[in-house]
Amino acid sequence: MTISSSQEAAGATPAAAALAALRAVVDAAGFVDAGAPEAERYLHDWTGDYRGGALAVLRPSRVEEVQAIVRICAEHRIALIPQGGNSGLVSGGIAEGPPRAVVVSLERLNRIRAIDPENFTLAADAGVILQVLKDAAEASDMLFPLALGAQGSCQIGGNVSTNAGGINVLRYGMTRDLVLGVEAVLPDGSLFEGMHGLRKDNRGYDLKQLLIGGEGTLGIVTGVEVKLFPRPANIETAYLGLASFADAMTVFGMARRVCSDLLTAFEVIGAECIPFARIAARDTRVPLEGEWPVHVIMELGCSAAIDGRALVEALLVEAFEAGLLGDGALAQSRAHAADFWAIRENLVEGQAKRGRHIRTDLSVRLSRVAEVIERSRVYIAVDWPGWEPLSYGHAGDGNIHFNVMPPVGMAEEEIRRNGKVMLDGLYAIMRALGGSFSAEHGVGRSRRDVYWDWLPAEQRSAVRAIKAALDPHGIMNPGALIPE
Amino acid sequence: MTISSSQEAAGATPAAAALAALRAVVDAAGFVDAGAPEAERYLHDWTGDYRGGALAVLRPSRVEEVQAIVRICAEHRIALIPQGGNSGLVSGGIAEGPPRAVVVSLERLNRIRAIDPENFTLAADAGVILQVLKDAAEASDMLFPLALGAQGSCQIGGNVSTNAGGINVLRYGMTRDLVLGVEAVLPDGSLFEGMHGLRKDNRGYDLKQLLIGGEGTLGIVTGVEVKLFPRPANIETAYLGLASFADAMTVFGMARRVCSDLLTAFEVIGAECIPFARIAARDTRVPLEGEWPVHVIMELGCSAAIDGRALVEALLVEAFEAGLLGDGALAQSRAHAADFWAIRENLVEGQAKRGRHIRTDLSVRLSRVAEVIERSRVYIAVDWPGWEPLSYGHAGDGNIHFNVMPPVGMAEEEIRRNGKVMLDGLYAIMRALGGSFSAEHGVGRSRRDVYWDWLPAEQRSAVRAIKAALDPHGIMNPGALIPE
Repeated sequence: MTISSSQEAAGATPAAAALAALRAVVDAAGFVDAGAPEAERYLHDWTGDYRGGALAVLRPSRVEEVQAIVRICAEHRIALIPQGGNSGLVSGGIAEGPPRAVVVSLERLNRIRAIDPENFTLAADAGVILQVLKDAAEASDMLFPLALGAQGSCQIGGNVSTNAGGINVLRYGMTRDLVLGVEAVLPDGSLFEGMHGLRKDNRGYDLKQLLIGGEGTLGIVTGVEVKLFPRPANIETAYLGLASFADAMTVFGMARRVCSDLLTAFEVIGAECIPFARIAARDTRVPLEGEWPVHVIMELGCSAAIDGRALVEALLVEAFEAGLLGDGALAQSRAHAADFWAIRENLVEGQAKRGRHIRTDLSVRLSRVAEVIERSRVYIAVDWPGWEPLSYGHAGDGNIHFNVMPPVGMAEEEIRRNGKVMLDGLYAIMRALGGSFSAEHGVGRSRRDVYWDWLPAEQRSAVRAIKAALDPHGIMNPGALIPE
Repeated sequence: MTISSSQEAAGATPAAAALAALRAVVDAAGFVDAGAPEAERYLHDWTGDYRGGALAVLRPSRVEEVQAIVRICAEHRIALIPQGGNSGLVSGGIAEGPPRAVVVSLERLNRIRAIDPENFTLAADAGVILQVLKDAAEASDMLFPLALGAQGSCQIGGNVSTNAGGINVLRYGMTRDLVLGVEAVLPDGSLFEGMHGLRKDNRGYDLKQLLIGGEGTLGIVTGVEVKLFPRPANIETAYLGLASFADAMTVFGMARRVCSDLLTAFEVIGAECIPFARIAARDTRVPLEGEWPVHVIMELGCSAAIDGRALVEALLVEAFEAGLLGDGALAQSRAHAADFWAIRENLVEGQAKRGRHIRTDLSVRLSRVAEVIERSRVYIAVDWPGWEPLSYGHAGDGNIHFNVMPPVGMAEEEIRRNGKVMLDGLYAIMRALGGSFSAEHGVGRSRRDVYWDWLPAEQRSAVRAIKAALDPHGIMNPGALIPE
């Protein structure tokens, strides 16, 4: 990595020539001085947990401008940090420490390029907000299924660069599975043109797979072509109460079979999370008779020609007869279903309102979901008295957010310090169960060390070799993913 | 690429030391002399179109043996050609010209390692025959959906290395979409261990994506973990007659919407193909009233709780009322459905019986399927009088096999010579329509030149950089994919 040493040796001043050249290749709105108030919002993520600096913020409005920016940076060995909606949770678009990179925001590249209804595809600039893209698909009576909390602010280019997950992965896959084509500016400023819209194309190395989830370390995604799907006319939502996570996973397997993989979501919620939903919405009412340790929100989408209600009812009967189901409620309207989903959304907001806490994003095999939760709970109970664990997540994908709330009144700094130690313990449990510390959020900077620590030597070599081969000067998002 | 030059300079003899070392790391059945009759079947593909040589054939029975083989080859700069069932169609596992590589057959690595029903996954050695793997899934009441003509002989490792396609891509995706994890021996003999069975794992570069479809140029796949699916209890099969390919594509869009993406196949067959089915099976009967220029075989799979028959009937009514459907037949039993499918299988066999012909494996956007067939037909009619084009394929994926039969009696050599010129013309049409010359068969050696010719300069650089980074001595399947 030539960046850090040359920067350190040279200080910030010699970047002046590069900055002047950069200013010249974009329009007036395209260059924001690092000190300008306008720069502020590009320098911290939405949680406020991460805050960084930059030599300048660039806001190109055309792909050619992105290419010109990268060429100048390559020539002057200036690092670039590509930035989407800044809603990632792992500091992938924010570099702490002394400023030594320009931030390149894609937000002005925000055009829907084309919809091909017969091909079930949509092409868009990288800066298109996910919700805008979803609305465009819906206006053509189709569905773009990527669905996550930040969809009103995150950008499709960021979704691709981070391989975003979310609620509907169960049926439709991660972002990787939804991308047919990518256009990206490579570290030498050349344009990778991979937007053919072909649903089947088997020619050599699938290079776009490195850009997807590459977190901006191999290039800047400027355009994306995604798959669209028929929009489900029938949506059925159920809220279930069960005795255990193990029972929930058994019901999930049953649901896949009975419902022919038409399930779009299977979310588990430990009952201990419900008070946190009430922090965000005091009058939260759980639609179950009696108290159940584990809740499930299940959703199924299908065409008008399929009786989705009958499918869900068949499943509930089978689960009840097998002694797996405590109680269940079927949404009687979309508004009713929205009440179910509000519980899921509010329990996240409630955690944020409580303040700093320990977040995880773990995944294990489905056959080990119950075990990883159980072991993690025991660990917290024994080693961290006074701390309060919450278990919820996309159980159908084996993805659990096992978060831990600190004792009320603990100082920020103490939470942060304890958090590091606690995470080591939680990660050790996941690791022993063959799991991942990152089901969907990615690595970025905040998890780079654990990523590298877990990575076998031969994979480290491969990652470094690929990075060096495609970004020989190490200018693309240095510090993210790969230790410098 | 150091191989060709060192080999050429040295001739075959200095390989003797390497061969002796190789013989020592496998058991008696693991080493076959190149001249032995037993070696013969590893040196040609199943079509007989390609025939090659080898320094020896190695048949390791353990992953550690594969590692030892690769280490010896790396040390002596001996090339390796990984080989599965040899049913690929692009000479990916056969090297013509003077022998300068060892063939490494994975066929003795043929163990199903584990089935995890709760996780819906299966782990297997690379050499497991696809049909054996499918049967193992079925024995656990699950489905492994990869389905292709060669499934009785191809191996799952080969399917992964070539990213195989087939009949059910429509619903379940290419092999890439079915693979959760890969184990592979890298070009330095180290083991890439990527079989975690995690359904969601978002940690940095997804290295397995380079091995999938890498055609053995970056490593030797030794193990695979695949996704399983609920086995459809109801399967409905329909045979349709339509006026045009354009109408067929419109019906396909309708079918996706009406049937909620439960379609597993949507195959088109130009009526001109039917006589070829009769070459294989003289009494072939088309289950339609009247003559229709385009036939479709459509299949839908769903759980017992869904009335698949009603879904297909609803679609047929809608298509008929829209004036898109000429005639249609619904299979009344699995045997009846098998009769439909026999037409599709026999028309391929009939072509093989007719002898050498020109094959393609093109893909275009779904919105251009009708156009690519029309343009290609005009090209053959005008420029190649006496030649007979056949159009059929996986239309739901935009994948058409546009094959051309030579005039009866034309000499092999003349067919071969004309074929090269004709393919250039057909490829130019696909290229003008933004298509691919390889929807599913891959590149191998037979399409390497057209692959490279079409590939933009920046992608060529990236491919070469990745190859050099991961296989610095160029020992892995040299000559495949990348020009030497």
